[in-house]
Amino acid sequence: MNHREIELFGHIIDSLILPKALDIIMDHGGDFKITEFDIGKRKSDVSRAKIVVSADSPSLLNQILDELTEIGASIAEIKEAKLIASSKDKVAPTDFYSTTNHITHVFYKGNWLIVDDIEMDCMIVIDEENNKAHCKPIGKIKKGDKIVVGREGIRVTPPERPRGKQGIFEFMNSDVSSEKPLMSLIDKIASEIKEIKSRGGKIAIVGGPAIVHTGSSDLMAKMIKEGFIDVIFAGNALATHDIENALYGTSLGVCVKSGEVVSRGHTHHMRAINEINSSGSIKEAVEDGTLKKGIMYECVKNNVPYVLAGSIRDDGPLPDVITDVIEAQETMRSYAQDVDMVIMIATMLHSIATGNILPSKVKSICVDINPATVTKLSDRGSAQVISIVTDIGAFLPILYSALEK
Amino acid sequence: MNHREIELFGHIIDSLILPKALDIIMDHGGDFKITEFDIGKRKSDVSRAKIVVSADSPSLLNQILDELTEIGASIAEIKEAKLIASSKDKVAPTDFYSTTNHITHVFYKGNWLIVDDIEMDCMIVIDEENNKAHCKPIGKIKKGDKIVVGREGIRVTPPERPRGKQGIFEFMNSDVSSEKPLMSLIDKIASEIKEIKSRGGKIAIVGGPAIVHTGSSDLMAKMIKEGFIDVIFAGNALATHDIENALYGTSLGVCVKSGEVVSRGHTHHMRAINEINSSGSIKEAVEDGTLKKGIMYECVKNNVPYVLAGSIRDDGPLPDVITDVIEAQETMRSYAQDVDMVIMIATMLHSIATGNILPSKVKSICVDINPATVTKLSDRGSAQVISIVTDIGAFLPILYSALEK
Amino acid sequence: MNHREIELFGHIIDSLILPKALDIIMDHGGDFKITEFDIGKRKSDVSRAKIVVSADSPSLLNQILDELTEIGASIAEIKEAKLIASSKDKVAPTDFYSTTNHITHVFYKGNWLIVDDIEMDCMIVIDEENNKAHCKPIGKIKKGDKIVVGREGIRVTPPERPRGKQGIFEFMNSDVSSEKPLMSLIDKIASEIKEIKSRGGKIAIVGGPAIVHTGSSDLMAKMIKEGFIDVIFAGNALATHDIENALYGTSLGVCVKSGEVVSRGHTHHMRAINEINSSGSIKEAVEDGTLKKGIMYECVKNNVPYVLAGSIRDDGPLPDVITDVIEAQETMRSYAQDVDMVIMIATMLHSIATGNILPSKVKSICVDINPATVTKLSDRGSAQVISIVTDIGAFLPILYSALEK
Amino acid sequence: MNHREIELFGHIIDSLILPKALDIIMDHGGDFKITEFDIGKRKSDVSRAKIVVSADSPSLLNQILDELTEIGASIAEIKEAKLIASSKDKVAPTDFYSTTNHITHVFYKGNWLIVDDIEMDCMIVIDEENNKAHCKPIGKIKKGDKIVVGREGIRVTPPERPRGKQGIFEFMNSDVSSEKPLMSLIDKIASEIKEIKSRGGKIAIVGGPAIVHTGSSDLMAKMIKEGFIDVIFAGNALATHDIENALYGTSLGVCVKSGEVVSRGHTHHMRAINEINSSGSIKEAVEDGTLKKGIMYECVKNNVPYVLAGSIRDDGPLPDVITDVIEAQETMRSYAQDVDMVIMIATMLHSIATGNILPSKVKSICVDINPATVTKLSDRGSAQVISIVTDIGAFLPILYSALEK
Repeated sequence: MNHREIELFGHIIDSLILPKALDIIMDHGGDFKITEFDIGKRKSDVSRAKIVVSADSPSLLNQILDELTEIGASIAEIKEAKLIASSKDKVAPTDFYSTTNHITHVFYKGNWLIVDDIEMDCMIVIDEENNKAHCKPIGKIKKGDKIVVGREGIRVTPPERPRGKQGIFEFMNSDVSSEKPLMSLIDKIASEIKEIKSRGGKIAIVGGPAIVHTGSSDLMAKMIKEGFIDVIFAGNALATHDIENALYGTSLGVCVKSGEVVSRGHTHHMRAINEINSSGSIKEAVEDGTLKKGIMYECVKNNVPYVLAGSIRDDGPLPDVITDVIEAQETMRSYAQDVDMVIMIATMLHSIATGNILPSKVKSICVDINPATVTKLSDRGSAQVISIVTDIGAFLPILYSALEK
Repeated sequence: MNHREIELFGHIIDSLILPKALDIIMDHGGDFKITEFDIGKRKSDVSRAKIVVSADSPSLLNQILDELTEIGASIAEIKEAKLIASSKDKVAPTDFYSTTNHITHVFYKGNWLIVDDIEMDCMIVIDEENNKAHCKPIGKIKKGDKIVVGREGIRVTPPERPRGKQGIFEFMNSDVSSEKPLMSLIDKIASEIKEIKSRGGKIAIVGGPAIVHTGSSDLMAKMIKEGFIDVIFAGNALATHDIENALYGTSLGVCVKSGEVVSRGHTHHMRAINEINSSGSIKEAVEDGTLKKGIMYECVKNNVPYVLAGSIRDDGPLPDVITDVIEAQETMRSYAQDVDMVIMIATMLHSIATGNILPSKVKSICVDINPATVTKLSDRGSAQVISIVTDIGAFLPILYSALEK
Repeated sequence: MNHREIELFGHIIDSLILPKALDIIMDHGGDFKITEFDIGKRKSDVSRAKIVVSADSPSLLNQILDELTEIGASIAEIKEAKLIASSKDKVAPTDFYSTTNHITHVFYKGNWLIVDDIEMDCMIVIDEENNKAHCKPIGKIKKGDKIVVGREGIRVTPPERPRGKQGIFEFMNSDVSSEKPLMSLIDKIASEIKEIKSRGGKIAIVGGPAIVHTGSSDLMAKMIKEGFIDVIFAGNALATHDIENALYGTSLGVCVKSGEVVSRGHTHHMRAINEINSSGSIKEAVEDGTLKKGIMYECVKNNVPYVLAGSIRDDGPLPDVITDVIEAQETMRSYAQDVDMVIMIATMLHSIATGNILPSKVKSICVDINPATVTKLSDRGSAQVISIVTDIGAFLPILYSALEK
Repeated sequence: MNHREIELFGHIIDSLILPKALDIIMDHGGDFKITEFDIGKRKSDVSRAKIVVSADSPSLLNQILDELTEIGASIAEIKEAKLIASSKDKVAPTDFYSTTNHITHVFYKGNWLIVDDIEMDCMIVIDEENNKAHCKPIGKIKKGDKIVVGREGIRVTPPERPRGKQGIFEFMNSDVSSEKPLMSLIDKIASEIKEIKSRGGKIAIVGGPAIVHTGSSDLMAKMIKEGFIDVIFAGNALATHDIENALYGTSLGVCVKSGEVVSRGHTHHMRAINEINSSGSIKEAVEDGTLKKGIMYECVKNNVPYVLAGSIRDDGPLPDVITDVIEAQETMRSYAQDVDMVIMIATMLHSIATGNILPSKVKSICVDINPATVTKLSDRGSAQVISIVTDIGAFLPILYSALEK
């Protein structure tokens, strides 16, 4: 039998670390013996357990240890992380360690280095000169980068389960049912937003064009003007229809005020793009007086940065759209690590893209009328996201009035 | 070749009667010759066409004539409707005419009798003594009833397509997309409700328990108190959770104000039923002071009738619930023919049941967050229903404030 | 401070009993001290913990104890269950204990009596003469029944988490994603069915009319003929469309083979009901040669009982339909306690109704193309149900060929 | 009053052109007088109508004429199309004509030029030297391009409604209900595919990663090998998970055969990308023996071109992915005009992108388990698409066996 001792530490019962660890061992057909166990007698106390894990083969044992490591178990006898240099740009050594989006440390030269800019599905590169660990997506790996391989010397710290009922993130579980009292739920989100802003935190909006279609772009524009929003991630569609609405009062050719289809309205979004092309960019269109209101206008006026990421379904696109998706990702990344909260509204593509690059510590809310969108988001690994299944045309008005209270 | 002349009359081009008629003929492999055609030169003019329909076999010709009759074509040479007496309770002659939910006339003894209480999937029974035609569901057929068979002497008048843009029913098409400006849409519904009430019309609500779960029962109660609602069709669940909310502040154990799960709250609906059982009925619970607010309370206080129809998933049920579904249908029928508008909220079962017994002239709105519900409703033959895919927790607050404007 | 000692026993870490217990205590603002803790050193060992729970008020303490009892904690110092006699038919004493669907024992006169016919949301009635405990729905409470109140002397045993990966119920988690390999999943269900039948177990089908609409009724009929199905719970719609299909080859007027709309087909379901009304019942229609194939035919021929429960949306209904919903529930109850597995197919109403009366030990599978149906089922308390989001038109053919392998 | 005479020609009643025309006029508050009307007396005859349209203002009249033009009405007195040169790259004159996806002609120098490469939301550019009309997306407009403005001299020919019932496109209406007989429907698609291939036509697949997740990639690979597929439009995800499946037997870390989660499987897609990066490209990975089966393998082996379009949610991406979305669109365009049929499977993004660039004459089928996807596609203007709501894990096996029959 092959065995190895691991150690669990923290609120390991309460935060389900211990049951999950035993699960992993048994699900793989391994065995365990608990050798030490100090349980916190009171809820403020931490617990500690030592467990000897055993398995039939070294490879099975390694598999088990791998997964234990990812839920926060540390291997009792700490070894240095193993590094192998990349042989080629964009290529990692075969056994590279693939990151989670949780806070991660690497044991290197006797110290636990925190991994900067952590996001999921990336590699850890050690900067040996500066004694630093970076998280790098595969596309940015350079030949010669020292990449962490295997599983030794890595410590992952998943978010602890919060206690008490004060905030929205403590209140919600992962349910996506639409039969919840919407008003009280949005009140809690508004409180959270105000609390974050009051301590100088940053809030990102990830938004789809349904914000404009459902007639809520005025409120979003107000939220920008009033300083609730620090950065916007969106696509060509949100910006185009916002500008269409500002110029012609329609969104996809439907009058936003009356809901009626406007004659030749289905060409308006193309005319909007043509106008911005003519000015040169959204900023220039604001400056030359073409664009006088709306979400994009308020972004320009209030210096709220926006990242408009291109997609293959784009008409146009607007000159401000970053048509190279990798460049768009990089631009999003430059903002993502700094935000405290992300509200994703009615856009599966941009929500999943944002979820991909977000550390698990960022509070995230996903709002969509389609339960499939929010389900997909958590299927893709963004388990920390709170999901609200509701109508966008209702969500923003209620949120805005809760913010004004 | 077998042939027969039919006549079309009215706005037959504009209301798609003529194209549909040609469609039917050609889809069945029949042939046609247009023998007369007076087209309305202006939009206020009616048109008239005579068409000779021909087919290979008499049975094919009859099939085609059947379907033409249902879209409003009348067979040029009018014959009396043919009657056969029922041989047994609940049994119609094999070739019985199965009704649509459109206004229907029967040609009997030289007169066009209107069919009373028309609803879909029923039989037409002629009361020979009183020269009257009644629509009867199969379960109410009595031995000896004179039932219309075949297709002669029947005239169906589908609703004409309305013109102009003033009302919600002119404005909406059958789209169920959730990307519509919700606010303006609900404004139009509110105007329609106020217009109906101002001319003494009647409005029915068909509601599911999500009205209570989403925290909107107070508003529904206010709407009843303020006279907007004339009758309620619902099930045990709406009433039980409304009473649960009135007694304990929860719905399915969730605090309606805060959205938090309440300790032992999942037993509250059983306790609510127990309380009403103890009083004897909802009315008695209002009278003895047990029930002091909510939807059911306001119904009792304001003499708004309610039909609580039982279903096999009911807990309890409340003593007011009609557990025999056929008796429940009959009670619903006694109100349905009189109403001018029906608003169906978050209940597929009761919405389809109501759709089944409603004449097509009644204005109907179906609100649900699940597009499948509204799709099913129109699949089942209730094509005149306007569908709104939105969050109930948002719909009622916005509707109520539009009504108060 | 008010405190009380509880005891946990079994695989309390692995089956999440201990973490859930600590959760409950802390979520309510209580406190705890672990006084004894014997953890199983190996996975086959059981664990045991004694915990002193404390709270600010007696009512808070009772709330906490209530919820602990429901997850299987037993109060260390066992008291007798308290009984109060019902004052009136259908009325329980205010503080009645409302059941879960888990195996439940009551401590009465020094013995732990098992509660017969356990289902959720019912009362426990003690038959003092025969020393037996019965689970009764509120509608069957008789004046004078001795009903368990409060929380003393009750022990609930939730299903243990199964281990290993052999069966479908071990394999699936509660995910409702449609992006699963369908074939392997259905293979596992087929194995489970064969295993149950090989040891003489019973399988119930709960089915909606989509089985017929999607062209799968032949396969269901074959499954009945080949002995895979022991009882069917359905409504008027499944039976009517099955008979429509047997008589006319259509379902809701659509040709089941070709998928084309058949002329006057929308009247076929009324004609089918009329035929059965004419014969007198489904059984008589089989005997007199009217009905010659299909699901209902095979049920009659193979003595497979069926419960057709009425609903307010029924046309007709067929003479075999039980129109009183409480009577229908009772009939379903008479079969439900005996089955080993339930497969619910494309019917929210009957699935929830069945879920309501089913003990949690019965293996349940819910198949629907609409994720909302399966979500609702588990929201309503039937947490043990495995959900499969797929097309019924595909599920039954694949299941049948897996059964034939 | 302002007025103008228009002419309608063809099966204008049967194909709803006449009713639609009258609709448009009346919906805008215009008036009409039918001055000539020759109705086809038999179904093979064409009809012809002349209508004088009048309106209160010239701008209203122009609006009405605009919309009439789009449904195929031609203005009786034909004028030359008006051209204005673009003032700047990517900028069209303000009054540019925005295209539909229907066959379009422009009246230029006395001739009706067909517009090449028609797709929706583009501009028409006249090549005066060669007497040709091209459809250009806004991003490809060059300074000096002669662009059609206004509405004179444009003729749009929407697809005629097909007659008879032989093919799938005649059979389906636009319903997205999931309650259709799946088998017969897929049989019709298979016949259509075979018919297209037998006459040398081309078929494109637009696919999402659910093809691999649901275990259907082997069948797709076989379809490629057997020559049923001529080009594939997909994203990084389909290719990555297909390669993950080929290398490790998993898709998103789930074993495709057994449906079980594989240890560390969630890193497999990153390892797959790393392998291809190491080989250099998918083609090189096939050549060096790294990639030995699957969809991408068969594409390389059988010279079936694929367009992998990037999106911001991509991990990696694979070296073959076109990360610039405009370049990806252009590559898709280079194939789209040539195909006869497009089957879109489980990908909203790529389906809408393909719909955007497809002429309405291409037969299109969209398969998804989520009704919202198919609804969105037709909301976006791709009305000619046939929608099937079903499980991908079932669709491809049934389609493949129908193709093999």
